[in-house]
Amino acid sequence: MADLLLKNVRSPKGDSVDVLVRGGRILDIGPGLHADPDVTLEDGGGALLLPGLIEGHTHLDKTTWGSPWYVNKVGPALTDRIDNERTWRAASGHDAASHSRALAQAFLRAGTTRIRTHVDIDTDAGLKHLHGVNATRQELAGRVEIQTVAFPQSGLLVRSGTAELLDQALAEGADVLGGLDPSAIDRDPAKSLDVLFGLADKHGKPVDIHLHEPGELGAFTLDLILDRAQALGMRGKVVISHAFCLGGIDAKRLDGLLKRLALLDVAVLTTAPASRPVPAVRACREAGVTIFGGNDGIRDTWTPYGSPDMLERATLIGLRNDLRRDDEIEWALDCVTHAAARACGFADYGLARGARADLVLVDAACVAQAVVQRTPRRLVVAGGVIVARNGEDAIA
Amino acid sequence: MADLLLKNVRSPKGDSVDVLVRGGRILDIGPGLHADPDVTLEDGGGALLLPGLIEGHTHLDKTTWGSPWYVNKVGPALTDRIDNERTWRAASGHDAASHSRALAQAFLRAGTTRIRTHVDIDTDAGLKHLHGVNATRQELAGRVEIQTVAFPQSGLLVRSGTAELLDQALAEGADVLGGLDPSAIDRDPAKSLDVLFGLADKHGKPVDIHLHEPGELGAFTLDLILDRAQALGMRGKVVISHAFCLGGIDAKRLDGLLKRLALLDVAVLTTAPASRPVPAVRACREAGVTIFGGNDGIRDTWTPYGSPDMLERATLIGLRNDLRRDDEIEWALDCVTHAAARACGFADYGLARGARADLVLVDAACVAQAVVQRTPRRLVVAGGVIVARNGEDAIA
Repeated sequence: MADLLLKNVRSPKGDSVDVLVRGGRILDIGPGLHADPDVTLEDGGGALLLPGLIEGHTHLDKTTWGSPWYVNKVGPALTDRIDNERTWRAASGHDAASHSRALAQAFLRAGTTRIRTHVDIDTDAGLKHLHGVNATRQELAGRVEIQTVAFPQSGLLVRSGTAELLDQALAEGADVLGGLDPSAIDRDPAKSLDVLFGLADKHGKPVDIHLHEPGELGAFTLDLILDRAQALGMRGKVVISHAFCLGGIDAKRLDGLLKRLALLDVAVLTTAPASRPVPAVRACREAGVTIFGGNDGIRDTWTPYGSPDMLERATLIGLRNDLRRDDEIEWALDCVTHAAARACGFADYGLARGARADLVLVDAACVAQAVVQRTPRRLVVAGGVIVARNGEDAIA
Repeated sequence: MADLLLKNVRSPKGDSVDVLVRGGRILDIGPGLHADPDVTLEDGGGALLLPGLIEGHTHLDKTTWGSPWYVNKVGPALTDRIDNERTWRAASGHDAASHSRALAQAFLRAGTTRIRTHVDIDTDAGLKHLHGVNATRQELAGRVEIQTVAFPQSGLLVRSGTAELLDQALAEGADVLGGLDPSAIDRDPAKSLDVLFGLADKHGKPVDIHLHEPGELGAFTLDLILDRAQALGMRGKVVISHAFCLGGIDAKRLDGLLKRLALLDVAVLTTAPASRPVPAVRACREAGVTIFGGNDGIRDTWTPYGSPDMLERATLIGLRNDLRRDDEIEWALDCVTHAAARACGFADYGLARGARADLVLVDAACVAQAVVQRTPRRLVVAGGVIVARNGEDAIA
């Protein structure tokens, strides 16, 4: 017997459908479905149905979400921001568990049901932030699926003892191994990447590397990364986050790198920042490279910006890539839905029989309007359960 | 006797103040003000007080706001978009009066009390769009101050008869003379600018020129514009809208142009698009050039993006210019408040005795939070009258 029948909604392609849910999964989806009289019936009012949204790159452990405004007086260099944060967290008693929970709940209310979050691992904090995020992961299990990336925010080689902590984090169940600027931060890219991929190989875990390095430097490092992904046969297991270099090299060099990324099935994560060169969504798609989206940090000591609304991130991806036509704006939604699921390996995803019943209703005529208008979600269903209505937690 | 006493608010600098309003103006502002018992008393609840927000560059006559979603299938070239719009408006029965009114009212609910709008003047439509926007201007007089720019969207020289229509628009009371890419569109920059500045001089009106031309081409045209502004002594009367060229030339050339803009008191309008080179807020401010902000079109046949919330535009200006520190984000607010008033010549502006009582209350600890968080405005006072509460029209 089914648990929920969602009637009278429109699929992203525009056809009228109903959705039948059982045991947290989509039992059936199509026109004119029926269920026994005692199944919970929900009228979608003709709203647009989207699959649960996906945050492909954030830092739940860094946020100040739910706390008083953090006054940002930080200097402009990457190392200023790294050092400021480590000092502030130690002094302020910042708690990764409560802050990550507040932000993850805000994500859920806005229809996000899967999150990849990079969690700082460093020799000051050890695994403290990972343990905090794990508490949130357990608390929200079945509603928000949280993937953790063990992330050496303060560098890997440059802070002795970090590799051992990453090893421990993976042993304790972190899902993915993170990396950070092997040239610019670690100053020894070949060795840094050898250590990193050695750890990933030891634990059989995917890799997701922050690569802020610009232009030809970033392209050089990217090739070193791809050499190792190729040698270890890690198809579909490597993500390059930011990949700013793909927005800052000449057309021929870009073409070669995109071909190699496609061949090795290495995905690219973009936050679509307005103030930096970025990988172009159109070029990646045309080359067959999976490109997907995320916020990066949200209201933390690095940046006051960001939002737990992934439709807002889709808007920013649209603006950054000058996606104006309705069919182009669907690419922006793809970045925070199907492409993100593929890149991060979130299983049982989508609006199809057997998938997890993560359903989002938006009052919009079409996908483009949903992305641009970003009204509070009419309904959010996570793992088959109604969790939010009109942007507010649903009362059980 | 006063009309309104707004108690218990915080100024942008953070000090607790009250505001006394009489005859639509600020009679007094400061701590601990009192009024007669029969004056309307409004408790601001400790919210942050901002001056009425300003939209420095939009196209009220183009919007589809308040209508069903416009499905965008337009080609990528500037001329594709110009031609598509003219054809669509003729075929759809688009009405500049009703659409501009719907959008202007949405602006007001979000705290915008002054708008500079460019209005298409072309040989197909004549002054029809101007008359439509004028109807809105009259209807909202005393609440939203609307400045009209007579704008040759389809070109000035390239469509014979346009100059005569602009002449007529200015004679009928359009506030500002607009221009469009004298090189790229009109193909004869010297003659185009001679005609344009001749008309402005004849009517004694300011000029606001859309300059999309990139790099050295735009810099060349900009110098031609500045030559004429200088010859006619138009200090404070010329705006360069977009000025993308200022984001696409080398440092020495940029430095020279910024110095000349500052010397001639010519202002720069930025919409801060994420996908194009733009003038940098920091560089303009450091050079003494007034830089201010606007949406450009909002949900029209050109673009699905844009919003009547000028705090959202401030966010986008912040993101485009990588303004992260609280003190930097105050520059983004300046772009949609004081700098815009100065550039457009909106009189009696600000939170000071004698200014028009255009007051906006935001639930935020400080300016940076107001910009980034963008909650619905707690209260909007326009011309001394409470017009909106919590994003909804106030019931009189």
